[in-house]
This record gives sequence, C-alpha cells and structure tokens, in this order.
Amino acid sequence: MAQLTCTYVRPLEGITVVVDLDEMKITKYYDRFTVPMPKVDGIEYQASKQKPPYGPRVNGVMVAQPDGPGFQIDGHMIRWANWNFHLGFDIRAGPIISLASIYDLEKDTFRRVLYRGFVSEMFIPYMDPTEEWYYKTFFDIGESGFGLCAVPLEPMTDCPANAVFMDGYLAGQNGKPFKISNVFCIFEKNAGDVMWRHTETGIIGQEIREVRPEVSLIVRMVSTVANYDYIVDWEFKQSGSIKVGVGLTGVLEVKAAPYTHTDQIKEDPYATLLADYTLGPYHDHFLTYHLDLDVDGDENSFVKDKLVTKRVTDHSSLRKSYWTVARETAKTESDAKTKLGIEPVELLVINPNKKTKIGNHVGYRLIPGSLASPLLSDDDYPQIRAEFTKYHVWVTPYNKSEKWAGGEYVDRSRGDDTLAIWSARNRDIENKDIVLWYTLGFHHVPYQEDFPIMPTLSGGFELRPANFFDSNPVLKTRIPKVAHWPNCTST
Amino acid sequence: MAQLTCTYVRPLEGITVVVDLDEMKITKYYDRFTVPMPKVDGIEYQASKQKPPYGPRVNGVMVAQPDGPGFQIDGHMIRWANWNFHLGFDIRAGPIISLASIYDLEKDTFRRVLYRGFVSEMFIPYMDPTEEWYYKTFFDIGESGFGLCAVPLEPMTDCPANAVFMDGYLAGQNGKPFKISNVFCIFEKNAGDVMWRHTETGIIGQEIREVRPEVSLIVRMVSTVANYDYIVDWEFKQSGSIKVGVGLTGVLEVKAAPYTHTDQIKEDPYATLLADYTLGPYHDHFLTYHLDLDVDGDENSFVKDKLVTKRVTDHSSLRKSYWTVARETAKTESDAKTKLGIEPVELLVINPNKKTKIGNHVGYRLIPGSLASPLLSDDDYPQIRAEFTKYHVWVTPYNKSEKWAGGEYVDRSRGDDTLAIWSARNRDIENKDIVLWYTLGFHHVPYQEDFPIMPTLSGGFELRPANFFDSNPVLKTRIPKVAHWPNCTST
Repeated sequence: MAQLTCTYVRPLEGITVVVDLDEMKITKYYDRFTVPMPKVDGIEYQASKQKPPYGPRVNGVMVAQPDGPGFQIDGHMIRWANWNFHLGFDIRAGPIISLASIYDLEKDTFRRVLYRGFVSEMFIPYMDPTEEWYYKTFFDIGESGFGLCAVPLEPMTDCPANAVFMDGYLAGQNGKPFKISNVFCIFEKNAGDVMWRHTETGIIGQEIREVRPEVSLIVRMVSTVANYDYIVDWEFKQSGSIKVGVGLTGVLEVKAAPYTHTDQIKEDPYATLLADYTLGPYHDHFLTYHLDLDVDGDENSFVKDKLVTKRVTDHSSLRKSYWTVARETAKTESDAKTKLGIEPVELLVINPNKKTKIGNHVGYRLIPGSLASPLLSDDDYPQIRAEFTKYHVWVTPYNKSEKWAGGEYVDRSRGDDTLAIWSARNRDIENKDIVLWYTLGFHHVPYQEDFPIMPTLSGGFELRPANFFDSNPVLKTRIPKVAHWPNCTST
Repeated sequence: MAQLTCTYVRPLEGITVVVDLDEMKITKYYDRFTVPMPKVDGIEYQASKQKPPYGPRVNGVMVAQPDGPGFQIDGHMIRWANWNFHLGFDIRAGPIISLASIYDLEKDTFRRVLYRGFVSEMFIPYMDPTEEWYYKTFFDIGESGFGLCAVPLEPMTDCPANAVFMDGYLAGQNGKPFKISNVFCIFEKNAGDVMWRHTETGIIGQEIREVRPEVSLIVRMVSTVANYDYIVDWEFKQSGSIKVGVGLTGVLEVKAAPYTHTDQIKEDPYATLLADYTLGPYHDHFLTYHLDLDVDGDENSFVKDKLVTKRVTDHSSLRKSYWTVARETAKTESDAKTKLGIEPVELLVINPNKKTKIGNHVGYRLIPGSLASPLLSDDDYPQIRAEFTKYHVWVTPYNKSEKWAGGEYVDRSRGDDTLAIWSARNRDIENKDIVLWYTLGFHHVPYQEDFPIMPTLSGGFELRPANFFDSNPVLKTRIPKVAHWPNCTST
C-alpha cells in the first residue's frame, strides 16, 4: 500500500457489503464473482516517480504584472476594472458570487447584473446496471459538498504566477471552524485574445487599425470530489460578459473485468476497455447553476426571442425567405422551461421597466454551452431525483428556500423536493425577482487517453449584455501601456 | 470625409445603381426613398480621438518567455513540443495547416493526424428582403478571399508579447507578387488553465497533489472582410487536441432608417434599432471547414457512436434504464451527413486498420461547437448556393477538385458545384482517404453593445484524440520550471 498513488484505479470487483448503521453490524456480504485486479503498470502519475522517456517539454511561458494586480480585495468584496462583486465560500456550493455590478461609463453609476450565482447541484449517473454499480448516481453538491471537497490551490500550477489567493473557513463536524488555505485564486488573464478590433481598409490613402487586447478576471476553485477534480471558474470581462467555466479532470472511476482485449468482450460492458482488466464505465456530468440575475434592478422577465423563418409570398422580393425575431415573454414557470438545441432561440433576462435611450429593454443574454440532456428514463429512480436536469433552462420566482436544485436533503431525496417539483406550481414569473437555472452537461464515454488521469475537458456558458448598455461599453478603453520590468537590463 | 473613421456606419439608404460592366455604363438608377443618414455621434473608435471619460483601465498583464519561444520555424514547417505541422498561406483560405503529426512517446514515432485543414467557405446571408438588401448573402472565402483580406498583425495587441510573426506572399492582380507583412503570428499560450490535475485525498496520512499547467501553441490570422474582422485560430495542445477557434469582431453592416425610438417601428425592421436612424439587420455566419484527417494513416472511416437508452426489463437490476454506445460505421456519404443537437452522438474518424494494444480502433473525435442551422428555405436562391450548410457534418472521399464547399467559381455559382452536389453521388467512404467537413455557425441578432464595433464573439470546435494513444499522452509531462528573468533584481 505504501506504493499506492491512487485508491481509485485498482478496484476489487464483485464484493458488496451491507452495513446496518443503527446496529453497526454487517448484515449482508455478497461475493458474486472474481476478476483480476487491474494492473499497477502505467497508473503512476506522480512526477517524482516518473522515468524517462518524459513527455513534451516547452519553454517557460509566464504571466508577469510588473505593476502588480489590478484588482482590490476588501474582505470578500472584489473590485476590478468596471466590476464589483462579493465572493463567498460555501460548504455546499463552493464559490458564491453575489452583488455583481458593472460600472456604466455613460450613466456614471454601477448597475446590478447578478444578485447571486452558484453551482446548485451536480448529478453524475453511471450507466452500469449491475449489482455493484447501479446505485452510483451521485449528487456531488448535496451529498459531498463542493466547498467541503475544495482543495488548497497550488501557486504556479493550479493558478498562474500573478494569482492572489484567498482562504476559506468551514464549520467542521465537531462544530469547530477549520480553514482551507488558498481555496480561491483570483487573477487577471491575458490569453492573447482580442477584446475588439477593426481595420478600416475602405478609405483611400489611409489604413486605420484599432485593436484592444482582452484582459479578464478569473475567480477559481478546485473541488476534488473523490476521483474527479472539478475546476470551477467565474470570468468577468470588461465588456460586461460573465463567463462560467468548468473543467473536468482527475481520475476515472474504473471497474475491474477479466478482459485484456476488446475481442474478449461478448456482452455490453457498459464501458470502454481502457487497459488490462480495466473498464471505464459510461456516465454523465450535469451541473445545474442557480443564477439569480437582477438586471438593472430586481424586477425582471424571462424572454425567448425565437428565430422564425418567414416566406416571402407576395413577390415583393427576389428572396423567398428570411428569418426574424418573435419575442415571447414567459408569464409562468411552465412557459420558461426550455430544452435547447431543437429550435433556434435567444434567451434573455430583461428588465421590463427599463429601456435604453432608443427603446430596447435592457437585458442580459444566456449563451448556452456544453448542452446535454439526460438519457435515463423518466421513471428511473435516479432520474426522478434528478428531474431538474430534464430541461436546460428553468425560471422560478425567487424563494429563499429554493437554493438547491436537488432538494435540501439530497442523501435521502425521493425527488419530492427538487426544482422540478417547485416549478410544477407554475407560479407567475413576469416582472418579478426571478432565478434562472441552467444545466450544462457532458455525456462521458471514456477513452484510453482519459486513463489513468484525464486531460481537462472544458465547458461552460456566458451571460452577455444584450441592450444593457447604449453602445459598446469598451469602445473607449485605451490601449494598455506596455509593461516594463523594473531593474532589468536586456540580454 | 477627412473626419471619417469608418465607411460602414453612415450608409446612404434607398439608392440602387446598376452598372453594365461590358458597356461600362450605368443602366439603372433607383432612388426609392429618403431616410436620414445615421449620426456621426458615438461611432468614432480611434483611441487618439477619444475624450474622457475613458473605459476601464487595468494593470499590464504580459506574457514573458525569458528563454524565448519553445518552437522552431523552418521555412513553413513548425515544430513545437510533440507537434510537427506545415503552415501555408493561401489567397482564398488564409491559413492552411497540413501534415500535422504528433509524437507518440510510447511508440517513439510521429503519427499523422491531419493531412490538411482550412476554412473552405463562409456564408453570411442577411435577413432583409427589401430591394437594397436582399442580395446581401455573401460567400466571404470564394468571393473575397480570407487570405486576400488578411491584415498585418500588430504586435502586443493582435498577438501577445511572445508572438513570432510570419509574412505571406500573394500574386497580385497584375501578376506581380506582393507581401502581407506579419500575416500570421505564432505564440505559446498560457491562459492559466490546467492540463490535468488530481488531489488524492483517500490515503490516510498523506495528500498527493499533482498538477500540470496547460501551455498550448496558437497560429493566428486576422481577415478583415469589409466591415467584419475574423480572428482565425488553430490551437495545438500537447494532449493531442487541435482546437479551432474563430472570433467575430469589427463593424456591423448597418442600415439607415427614420427611427430614433423603437416605439416608432410599426413593421418588421428585420433588424435591431442600434442608435438614432441606425438599424443592425439580422444575419448569419456559417464557416465550413475542410478537415482532411489522416488518423495514423490515410485509410480512415467515419463512425457515429450513438448514445442509446436501454430499458432494464428483466428485473435484474434496481435500475430501470441506462445508456450505452451503438457504433455505426458510415459506408457512404449519405450515411455520414449529420444534423447535430437532436440526438446524442460521438463523431469519430477512426483508422479501421489500426488498433490500440487492447483492441480499440485508433481515432480522433470531433467535439462540435457553435452549432447553428440555416433558417432560409431550401428553395431560396442563396440557400441553394449554400446547401453545404444544411448539415453540420459531411464526409466525402478525398478528391483533389473538392476543396471549396461553395464551388470553384462562387461569384457565379448557381449551386451546381458545391459540397452538397458532390456528396449526392453517395460514394463509398469506408476505409478510404476521407475528408470531414464541419460547419459552425452563429445566428447574429445585433445588440446595442455591438455598435459601432462589436466585442469579440467566439466559437469553435475540437479534434480530440479518442483511443489514438494507449493512455494519457501527457501523463509523463514534467512540471515546468519557474521562469526567471535574467539581470533583474527584485524590487
């Protein structure tokens, strides 16, 4: 055991133990079958134990800020560029972003965007129906806690050289507080992207070129929930966008089997053969976000701008068709539930009481990403408990008891206290304080590259201003000065 | 006119001029109506002409490589980390990536991934059927040329401080060569992402944490096709992924109208009111990529791994359902055509003649992004010419004449020489040298934030190894050394 790097990649398969926790007794012991334990070869991932040949090496690429970070942290309030927000640490959700407001240069005031946003639940059902695996349908937020499983972030690897770290405090099981050091990192990101640009080539005798490079702010937490490591990012852009990212990495939950070659597999293994005696069962990851947007105030509406094809039938045009926008305002929760990917639609949270100078309702748009829908049957017990994953989008009126999409007590959930149940009341949501729930997902068919550790697979979504500002809010952003190092000579 | 920054944002509306190019005469002149010309206020975007208040300012965030770039350029061959590829510059496509191969540490050899990849066509139909606008259904690659419209890249803004630039040469209309300086930049990107990580928390008495930061290589070109600026990125990851990105920015093509407030609009304007007298018409952007994958050799097959729900009917499990993978190999072009977003599916190009040690076919997976389908009617002339956008994915057998999805001579296309027509022959594609065509798209409803210049909207897709390697190819990547500046003292 001293050699063991990882407890997940060498499973003993076939044994089930049932314990009566009241009696503290083993009441049942099944040993259904024997299969070889997966081999130890190739599962070592510690740098100190690697032997040549080594993987590709690249020259150092570091981020430098000679003038220091451009943000201020005052307690848990963070101020950067045109953004202000509060960063909380929660035992269940991990990071909670609240009171996020953006400065409007024209109006000379901060305007509220997001009252509160966090990961509300994550559902990870495995697709192996056998005795030893059928129950593996995890609810990582409600059962394990993203905050409780957060790990200290390592400077220079988990976060770049210019990151600033923040500790988190939790109540332990004995009631005493304990600290997770460096639970968050906050850093300005310069990925070499372009905020906006244009080359004007149409004016004879001159070429006008204007480019503004993109620098954004990232808030990061990593939660290691048993075998998986989740990298949870909130990114704030000067243009007003909030991008939410999630990276999946860590160790696969594997299953032992007697196979050393796919030719030996005669029945559905519910899995990919990854290595000798090692299967990677199929599974999903669904992350449901609670997004209590307050777009320029707390009375908001949810609208679907459907893109609909129109036929030109009166021969008024040489075109036969075009598309236009048909706006539908969701009056009740039932109107708001949306499965995406079928019909083209723009989803917005607007403030019906506020308009831009020229009359458009101020709004924020959800640009979805990482779409996946559950494939379990509706009547399957795990799916009854996770019915909130059935739609990509739900909208509810704010209710302080409706924070956790899978219910308050998820361990014991029978699916009777979930977002799907609350929403079935079909409450009014027009011009109210509303919460947008978005579920992103990944169907995970493991590949051999994912073994023993998985290169990060990323997804996310964007909240982007949509007629929130009267015009491009970063038009008047100046070109950044080239940063120079003090006390250096060129070589 | 001396004050003019941009020729696109102050249109004279209502006038149509028809010219007979043989006679060099104006044959028709319509002046259908008069509307005010959009105002000049707020359209200036040159930094030198801005007045306070300025946009948000952030501290400098620069990328530094004290040891210099980690790649070598030998003519047009680029070598970096475990990748080798050729970067060509084409008047029509812009960048052409070819002969991309990745070094396999276990096999001690380079293995081919992509024989040739490039943007084959881009289709941008506007949704205004009126006399002055109906014909605006641009094919930017075939009509304008992404290479011909490429602009010199500006150090420190278009590309970060560590970028290396490459010139491009084209044949001018008079037959003489001309140079576009700095048409490409190549740089190593460190966005603060994580290549892979795991914290092992399950071993009593010790915590093992291993993290490898992500550094990738970007090849970038920017093409300013009239009003729009397209940022075209090819990203190579050490894990074997090739990510293709496109950023849309630049100036909207706007239309003059008599409105200063949305309340005045009584009929469908086919557009968003963006400013006084200024409409932003609805439109699409479809980019079709030609991806001649050669996965470990040139005889490949295209497979769809469909995720299908299975019911448990024999009471063998407490589960009622699960999903599993049903592989379908596309035998002909017709089998391969795919509309995405409807059914869950993994799309792979595999080499049916090569297997991993444990028997999986070596392959690469397409992870789609930025999905959009055309909304024009099939019988509409622009859509007949752009029928290749009807499916997100097509697969054809390699044919040297089939490079340009919209046909060889797009200006005069009647839709009889397109990918859709070639593919209608329904040729065999199993175990052949095949080409994967992927179309990404954006339905663009303009918002006021997009005026006068649009903050970058990004999309893309990923080609990711899928049982190409026997295990994680970056497991043995060492932790990078911290880069130190020479000749510096700390302050």
